[in-house]
Amino acid sequence: MAKQNLYQQRGVSAQKEDVHRAIQNLDQGLYPHAFCKVYPDVLAGDDQWVNIMHADGAGTKSILAYLYWKETGDISVWKGIAQDAVVMNLDDLLCVGVYNNIIFNSTIDRNKNLIPGEVLQQIIDGTQAIFDQLKTFGVNISYLGGETADVGDVVRTIAVNGTMACRWPKDKIITNQKIQHGDVIVGLASFGKAHYETHYNSGIGSNGLTSARHDTLHKFYAQQYKESYNTSLPDDVVYIGGHKLTDSLAPGNELVNIGRMLLSPTRTYAPVIKKILENHFHLVHGLIHCSGGGQTKCMKYLPATFKVIKDNLFMPPPVFDIIRQNSGATLQEMYEVFNMGCRLEIFCKPADAKIMMDIAEEFGIQAQITGRVEAAERNQLIIKTAEGDLLY
Amino acid sequence: MAKQNLYQQRGVSAQKEDVHRAIQNLDQGLYPHAFCKVYPDVLAGDDQWVNIMHADGAGTKSILAYLYWKETGDISVWKGIAQDAVVMNLDDLLCVGVYNNIIFNSTIDRNKNLIPGEVLQQIIDGTQAIFDQLKTFGVNISYLGGETADVGDVVRTIAVNGTMACRWPKDKIITNQKIQHGDVIVGLASFGKAHYETHYNSGIGSNGLTSARHDTLHKFYAQQYKESYNTSLPDDVVYIGGHKLTDSLAPGNELVNIGRMLLSPTRTYAPVIKKILENHFHLVHGLIHCSGGGQTKCMKYLPATFKVIKDNLFMPPPVFDIIRQNSGATLQEMYEVFNMGCRLEIFCKPADAKIMMDIAEEFGIQAQITGRVEAAERNQLIIKTAEGDLLY
Repeated sequence: MAKQNLYQQRGVSAQKEDVHRAIQNLDQGLYPHAFCKVYPDVLAGDDQWVNIMHADGAGTKSILAYLYWKETGDISVWKGIAQDAVVMNLDDLLCVGVYNNIIFNSTIDRNKNLIPGEVLQQIIDGTQAIFDQLKTFGVNISYLGGETADVGDVVRTIAVNGTMACRWPKDKIITNQKIQHGDVIVGLASFGKAHYETHYNSGIGSNGLTSARHDTLHKFYAQQYKESYNTSLPDDVVYIGGHKLTDSLAPGNELVNIGRMLLSPTRTYAPVIKKILENHFHLVHGLIHCSGGGQTKCMKYLPATFKVIKDNLFMPPPVFDIIRQNSGATLQEMYEVFNMGCRLEIFCKPADAKIMMDIAEEFGIQAQITGRVEAAERNQLIIKTAEGDLLY
Repeated sequence: MAKQNLYQQRGVSAQKEDVHRAIQNLDQGLYPHAFCKVYPDVLAGDDQWVNIMHADGAGTKSILAYLYWKETGDISVWKGIAQDAVVMNLDDLLCVGVYNNIIFNSTIDRNKNLIPGEVLQQIIDGTQAIFDQLKTFGVNISYLGGETADVGDVVRTIAVNGTMACRWPKDKIITNQKIQHGDVIVGLASFGKAHYETHYNSGIGSNGLTSARHDTLHKFYAQQYKESYNTSLPDDVVYIGGHKLTDSLAPGNELVNIGRMLLSPTRTYAPVIKKILENHFHLVHGLIHCSGGGQTKCMKYLPATFKVIKDNLFMPPPVFDIIRQNSGATLQEMYEVFNMGCRLEIFCKPADAKIMMDIAEEFGIQAQITGRVEAAERNQLIIKTAEGDLLY
């Protein structure tokens, strides 16, 4: 089955066309091309400062945690879900230049009959633990509470979301307005083991997890865990892969098993971006978090029409091969849904790329020039791969 | 079946004991008895100001909107859900004294196969419409965006949540610390038609809706709308009432039908509380939003042990009679789950009660002295009703 059709049947859209239509009447903020909406400083009324408020969450990755916890008894996987909900917010904020003095609030909706207090405890303690760790890098996020609602008639298992709010100096906002002809893209790897990470990161992030879960996991999960999917979906789109969560990976792979690979917590780039922006703010022309939309994400935030050529992306880490092999998705589709090994892009002049790469590598994160920007009459994206060119 | 048992089976808890255990390690804020957690001013670093961030939502009331929309085609009911999500946040903030300069962000999780963009549009436009109306009362809330996630494997229909953040002068925070022996409680009606409301309000609010829906609605909804409840619940707790949503109410009732009665949007008391706090801040000893926990809610926020005697509550409006008749719940249980006609309590000296009541009535909201506070060696709540005294 064509991948696009699989998405539609599963009720997932990487592009969210109807959501964008629904919000078109809302105030679009000060900078139309910025990665997050940026507003005047309602909170303190200073015209040199701005406010940003941002919501996101772990999405359907929480279902993977649920299955893994039920199958193995390992409750600690829920700490990873806490990290996913935090980082999906934080790394979006990084892309407008914000990395400090943030306040955070959790919104957890659960089916109390399936999700006990011990799971909430892992998520809440896990959230505070991430903030404690980030504080050591000067990234200060205050945990100002949250709401946990028992709504089993709405939520099959659990939804873990969070919201961040901040004030930031207006002259330190990355608006993406400086992205220009001749810029290169410095890509930061989503996989590997950063110095501040305790385990190897598969690079999966928190996007495309509905596909990743159904495409890789075995029909066993449909039979055993009816609560883990929309039971009105056609059978041929539900858990159509060949794996169990506890299936071992290739010898030598540090991620232990398929479950751990898919649940690998979303890496934050906050320590890296903080150092770059504190020292080289004016060299950064644009920042893109390759979340929903994968490697096509950048095309939504360009300040003019450009041809973007990505001809040197990372070799995708194994997690994406496993997803692709199980799903039969085309490479075209894979790059449109997943980060494929690169979750953060820095747009800058070619001469400044090394500064960015050196800082990423100081933190143990692989970085390289993955592409470039050329003037063009219409937006176009070319991704060059070993299997040929992809056009978007 | 005993009501308490019904709640447990449905996975709902009015007291949320395990949630409170899970968050016990978190920072409890500056004022332990305040209705919301209040923190130092992270956002601007001014020691005379504080920050508050708060999340809440429409809970399972969204399911009622879904059923009503499917049955009648009336998509406008979703605007009421937007109001519920806003007011459940705003009226909590009112209780620490905050009524202005707030920023808001939506978090909507939906099953895209059931909830189209047109529904999102109603919710988002409805949210902005409430803010536009509140602005005319000097209650300024800025809509700073939101996230809509397509997560049909997590959410059966739709979850509509929101988060508010604000800065506020520290000396204008209601901490509940001033609640004392001899205080009276001025109760503000949750029902009727405030001058700023366009329709009669049933008083239901957004708490206890899981019970209200299952207790009043007919098994028809279990058969026709499997997506509207947790299908693993025992059949004898699911839609056990006698009504259809379109059943007419008694002649002369302005709410038209049962559906409209249960979906009546949560009233905000913001215009009233703003006027009271701007003119009589020092007279207000405490503020309580009778949300989850109903008329027992106040007992969680007392600054010392007190006997609270509520001997003059409003005659509960018809919606609560209908729920009670259908469910067979005891009055003891009803007052523990529902607001029973009074959703906001102002604690003050007896001599100041008239000031509060007069302001509420200026806005067309019925108000009366519903109870009083007495020194006691342990916390005790007595609710006197026509059917006898209830002890908690």
